[in-house]
Amino acid sequence: MSKGYVVAVVGATGVVGKEMIETLQERKFPVAKLIPLASERSAGSTIDFKGNTIDVDVLNDESFIGVDFALFSAGGSISEKYAPLAVKSGAVVIDNTSHFRMDNDVPLIVPEVNGDAIKGHKGIIANPNCSTAQMVLLLKPIYDAVGIERIVVSTYQSVSGAGKDAIQELESQSRANLSGSDYQGNVFKSPIAFNVIPQIDVFLDNGYTKEEMKMIQETQKILRDDTIRITATAVRVPVFVGHSESINIQTKEYLSADDARKLFEAAPGVSVLDSPLEQEYPTPRQVAGEDNVFVGRIRNDLSIRNGIELWCVGDNLKKGAALNAVQIAEFLVQSRVTA
Amino acid sequence: MSKGYVVAVVGATGVVGKEMIETLQERKFPVAKLIPLASERSAGSTIDFKGNTIDVDVLNDESFIGVDFALFSAGGSISEKYAPLAVKSGAVVIDNTSHFRMDNDVPLIVPEVNGDAIKGHKGIIANPNCSTAQMVLLLKPIYDAVGIERIVVSTYQSVSGAGKDAIQELESQSRANLSGSDYQGNVFKSPIAFNVIPQIDVFLDNGYTKEEMKMIQETQKILRDDTIRITATAVRVPVFVGHSESINIQTKEYLSADDARKLFEAAPGVSVLDSPLEQEYPTPRQVAGEDNVFVGRIRNDLSIRNGIELWCVGDNLKKGAALNAVQIAEFLVQSRVTA
Repeated sequence: MSKGYVVAVVGATGVVGKEMIETLQERKFPVAKLIPLASERSAGSTIDFKGNTIDVDVLNDESFIGVDFALFSAGGSISEKYAPLAVKSGAVVIDNTSHFRMDNDVPLIVPEVNGDAIKGHKGIIANPNCSTAQMVLLLKPIYDAVGIERIVVSTYQSVSGAGKDAIQELESQSRANLSGSDYQGNVFKSPIAFNVIPQIDVFLDNGYTKEEMKMIQETQKILRDDTIRITATAVRVPVFVGHSESINIQTKEYLSADDARKLFEAAPGVSVLDSPLEQEYPTPRQVAGEDNVFVGRIRNDLSIRNGIELWCVGDNLKKGAALNAVQIAEFLVQSRVTA
Repeated sequence: MSKGYVVAVVGATGVVGKEMIETLQERKFPVAKLIPLASERSAGSTIDFKGNTIDVDVLNDESFIGVDFALFSAGGSISEKYAPLAVKSGAVVIDNTSHFRMDNDVPLIVPEVNGDAIKGHKGIIANPNCSTAQMVLLLKPIYDAVGIERIVVSTYQSVSGAGKDAIQELESQSRANLSGSDYQGNVFKSPIAFNVIPQIDVFLDNGYTKEEMKMIQETQKILRDDTIRITATAVRVPVFVGHSESINIQTKEYLSADDARKLFEAAPGVSVLDSPLEQEYPTPRQVAGEDNVFVGRIRNDLSIRNGIELWCVGDNLKKGAALNAVQIAEFLVQSRVTA
């Protein structure tokens, strides 16, 4: 323990991978050795960690020998192939892709919400979808207090959720459009600059996108209650970092907006920013860079007796991805120490 | 009739006023004389109409003598003061502000939806809020077919709804931010460039904004049914023109997504753009400049038996403001002719 752990980060040159490495450093996770891994495209690149420059290794079958924790964020097919190899080598995998999330054998964890579900894991622990992670932090205290019947959520998701090419596309396209030119992107089918796009991930037969179905299914899994009825519309907006969500919650018993606010004030990982008269509510530009998920616009729904409306903003690279992954690793370390 | 009508436009130099004048021209409304009116700030400016340059007059108590139609879009307090004067002078007022909308004596009209409610007007006819106008076009066919229990709507509204200074602010702030500088706006309290702001209009005691309450109350008034339960969250996004809405409708009887699509295909003023497999759905940049309101992402809500989810985009300056106002004038002209 004093020496710390060998930590591999798969997808170390991506937006989330970089954030994982920064988060390990910021939170002083006990890293004895960091192994940044990426595809051949990133061969020759380096990353900075605790004042040292570390070469990025090309991911291969031998990459996980001696590794304690392997944090994956390089796409579902990479996780599918390499996560089992990492587990075989003795590593615990914390996977940020959607590949294993709905697997019955794989716990899907937001430590503040269902950390206990991590027990008995078989080597792979899944990190939820960014939009789900921030939403369940707010649902949990309400669920425990008054129960939840139904959720209607519409999202306002930033481009960083689609990776560094998407960030570049928003920047270049905005610049071009402001000077009167066109810019043909290749990440988004529709222009993203000065536009909103009602599609994230691919469409499924039921007319929902995969992103929307992730929000529905992962929320039920994390709250361990598949009787919660959820519908979602996931929308991309021209914001660099920070996902926002307009969440309508129909509760089983009545909850006043004031009591909801008190529940959120006491909830781990949540900050309340809700002073309408001072025009205070969270926006992505305020919340980008913050660990906590912010909530505002808390009010009783005028259309039903047992309803709460709220507005939630989280940094999709932090609680939505890297921070939650590192918190899972921390939770495992603490559980072992106290076991 | 062959000579046409004397039409005054109050707020002729604003974003909506200009659009009203263009719309009168485009739709060949029978204008014998156009009188553009504005405040003293706009004294000396001119507008182009049908190839002529017309001086903008400063609005005063005598402005409406001889006027047949007065289209107002210069803020609630101007309508409050001058609309009754215009009526006294014998004009019919079509008011784009919220001032008279909920007045029992004032019809609130979207011609395709409740044109008949215009009968017996007392000189003032109100034009609904931009977000309401586009939503009711879609609600009407569903309401008539299967009834509506409840609506949960979240909006993605463009800056042009806040006027020309807001358009300028998004442009200048985006440009500044892209070159690494700050830009302090004065229209929006929070930055609007690369951000989303969950506030439109002022906050009320119940935690809703005035914009959200307009969507609730105006929809009930236009559909003539205050038992329809509605909740709304209105959000500003960094888009120049075009409002989008994620609308969840709980119907009284079951309606399949296919049948909803057929209803929309037959609905006046509505275009369906809904081919998920071709990644086709409306976005504001596509819909800006279009008269029709576009709908896509039509699907059955997985969370309830009788539910429809949809995504709607309209040009907020057209159907949301100027076009609907001119359509009201056209409806009046036709009613008189056929009466």
